[in-house]
Amino acid sequence: MAYIDLQNDLPGIRGPMAYSPETGKALNELAEILLHDENNTLTRGERELIGAFVSSENDCFFCQNVHGAMAQYYFQSDMQFIDDIKKDYHSTPISDKLKSLLTIAGSVQKGGKYVTTEQVDYAKSLGATDKEVHDTVLIAAAFCMFNRYVDGLNTWAPQDRQVYVERAKMRAEDGYANMNLNK
Amino acid sequence: MAYIDLQNDLPGIRGPMAYSPETGKALNELAEILLHDENNTLTRGERELIGAFVSSENDCFFCQNVHGAMAQYYFQSDMQFIDDIKKDYHSTPISDKLKSLLTIAGSVQKGGKYVTTEQVDYAKSLGATDKEVHDTVLIAAAFCMFNRYVDGLNTWAPQDRQVYVERAKMRAEDGYANMNLNK
Repeated sequence: MAYIDLQNDLPGIRGPMAYSPETGKALNELAEILLHDENNTLTRGERELIGAFVSSENDCFFCQNVHGAMAQYYFQSDMQFIDDIKKDYHSTPISDKLKSLLTIAGSVQKGGKYVTTEQVDYAKSLGATDKEVHDTVLIAAAFCMFNRYVDGLNTWAPQDRQVYVERAKMRAEDGYANMNLNK
Repeated sequence: MAYIDLQNDLPGIRGPMAYSPETGKALNELAEILLHDENNTLTRGERELIGAFVSSENDCFFCQNVHGAMAQYYFQSDMQFIDDIKKDYHSTPISDKLKSLLTIAGSVQKGGKYVTTEQVDYAKSLGATDKEVHDTVLIAAAFCMFNRYVDGLNTWAPQDRQVYVERAKMRAEDGYANMNLNK
């Protein structure tokens, strides 16, 4: 049960977002630009995967399932593919460039100062642009916020992982900016 | 030197915010609501202090000095007062309620799951409202993002701490939402 009376029974981040719609709107606008905006050379799937990976590292059940399901939807993969990436992305068939960005995201999860020149140079050597490095860092940092917001208030989350898979298509089509917080 | 070419020489978070103004706007809107909005039972000084404390725990020089200077401005204190709180808030003359909120913020900094029922119940027993607990968690979570954005891109920061003190009055008057990213 959440630590405060959220005045709704919505799961995960949707509970506090509906409780505090002004901050909810700002958070969703950020998510929209980072994850859903089409004007980005990283695919939506790659960006959702970075969010799912960081959420997994932060052990946030709700976020890793919401965004894992989004990545699964965009990659047109199964759940195992996403789980394998969260567990050990080095051994999966994703591109070396995406792996190098997940390494940067993993460092950001630990703390900003864990990112190294070598990690960034390596990503660039594989074709990552400055903007892609920027977005990777900010997506990873943003999920360190979202995950803490969800778990710091002890919100509840559906335990059936299929629930998240079934919602992903709607969220992919609607995006985040115009999310009806009560639906 | 920043890991990517930010195309400006602005310090700290202002560099990547000017580089990526769309996300910069969303981040500043969030900061405005959380830290500067007058419609809040936590004072601006208390909210800035929570941000400065979390930034100190994350060892982010830029953010802890920007927001420490803001707290100093609102509290009409000296720099030592803020430094003492960052170092050991238990031994400072701030209210027990604010101390209990800093304890929650300190847990959020480590990870959402570090927050305990006991910490929240204690804060409530000292008069903290649900909204104040919510805002404390989200402010702390947001600074875990801001700090990682600043340090994950290896931005530079003025080393003279007086620089931050001198800018605080302008920022307090202008707020965050309408920040001219290039000034």
